[in-house]
Amino acid sequence: MKSDFREVREELRQRILQGVWAPGDLVPNEVDLAAEFGCARATVNRAMRELAEAGLIERKRKAGTRVRLSPRRAARFDIPIVREEIEARGAAYRYALISRDEIAPPDWLAARMALAPGDLVLHLTCLHHADGQPYQHEERWISLAALPQARDGDFTATGPNEWLVREVPFSDAEISFSAIAADDQLARRMGCATGDALFLVERATWWEGRAITFVRLAHQRGHRMTTRY
Amino acid sequence: MKSDFREVREELRQRILQGVWAPGDLVPNEVDLAAEFGCARATVNRAMRELAEAGLIERKRKAGTRVRLSPRRAARFDIPIVREEIEARGAAYRYALISRDEIAPPDWLAARMALAPGDLVLHLTCLHHADGQPYQHEERWISLAALPQARDGDFTATGPNEWLVREVPFSDAEISFSAIAADDQLARRMGCATGDALFLVERATWWEGRAITFVRLAHQRGHRMTTRY
Repeated sequence: MKSDFREVREELRQRILQGVWAPGDLVPNEVDLAAEFGCARATVNRAMRELAEAGLIERKRKAGTRVRLSPRRAARFDIPIVREEIEARGAAYRYALISRDEIAPPDWLAARMALAPGDLVLHLTCLHHADGQPYQHEERWISLAALPQARDGDFTATGPNEWLVREVPFSDAEISFSAIAADDQLARRMGCATGDALFLVERATWWEGRAITFVRLAHQRGHRMTTRY
Repeated sequence: MKSDFREVREELRQRILQGVWAPGDLVPNEVDLAAEFGCARATVNRAMRELAEAGLIERKRKAGTRVRLSPRRAARFDIPIVREEIEARGAAYRYALISRDEIAPPDWLAARMALAPGDLVLHLTCLHHADGQPYQHEERWISLAALPQARDGDFTATGPNEWLVREVPFSDAEISFSAIAADDQLARRMGCATGDALFLVERATWWEGRAITFVRLAHQRGHRMTTRY
């Protein structure tokens, strides 16, 4: 038979699932598998690459490819722009800027963003509503050393995230998920009780090695971020 | 020059970053790009595939490939086994089973797992410690209709997750992140105050279309789940 990489991948996956190849076992080499499936070695290679990405096998340069002892799984989360996220839920989106200041960064932020002494940041707080209810509270700091044009940004009509996406189309980011208790101010803004447990997303963004922005996104009570993998 | 796909990908990425190709622009076709880079069309195709996965370009069968208006980003989270996660932090891992019951599933769970009337579930609660401190509270339900061998599982020495990984090496899952307030029982077990905000991971797992297990993982106060993308 002449197989495409999807067929090869499925067949290999079944052998792992059914224990034909047990955890820790060496997987036959690509040349032998290509001969067995009557396909190009590149086809087997592509199938193996996808199985490795799925965490089923582990490829080591010298030691060969083995079935992983415990499958290492990875979940993929799309990081949407909040307006798109709200509209995808069929709700009406409304944005409001709460505050805008140019400030010297607090120490924790200067350390987090690796800012030089004297660097200023633009500090913005805003609220994203879904059908008139507070949905996400955004507290954001933008490095004015890295992005001086943020001074001219108009953040009254659209959020800084949409501005940043246009200004810095590609970047590296570190994202953290956690839970926080709402303090008095956040509770007032989000329309919840002080101490309520809120889902927090924090994200630091770099472009060409420089910190661009750090943001804290607190979500309405009961918010869930869900994905399939 | 003869380019490999990484060089092609980087060059195309730079054109997008620098606005040579603006958001919404049609990207030149693969044949022309292959001629320009002096490489195989498959090399350009691989580079384009990676740029599409990174959310920079959008490929449509008939309409061609365009630079995305707002880059769609995705973050990848490794889903480790809690023992490995704790040991990777350099902490000592300890596991304790709190309770084990065979029960009729509550309605919400029967709906969530699409169980048939009369199906029973194994209900387990356990605690994972890091250096003697409660790190993660696990409440798990395993479908005995799908996995009757769970009745014979010994969950006193190792957690049900490690047992499941051996029993069902590959599966589909839906995962949710959220924040919860600890109730009295959870607070007592986690050594925190009632009402404390805890980071919650919920995961439902299917194998060949059948629900296998549903789990709620509550984490110690201040826990963060972090990734780079």
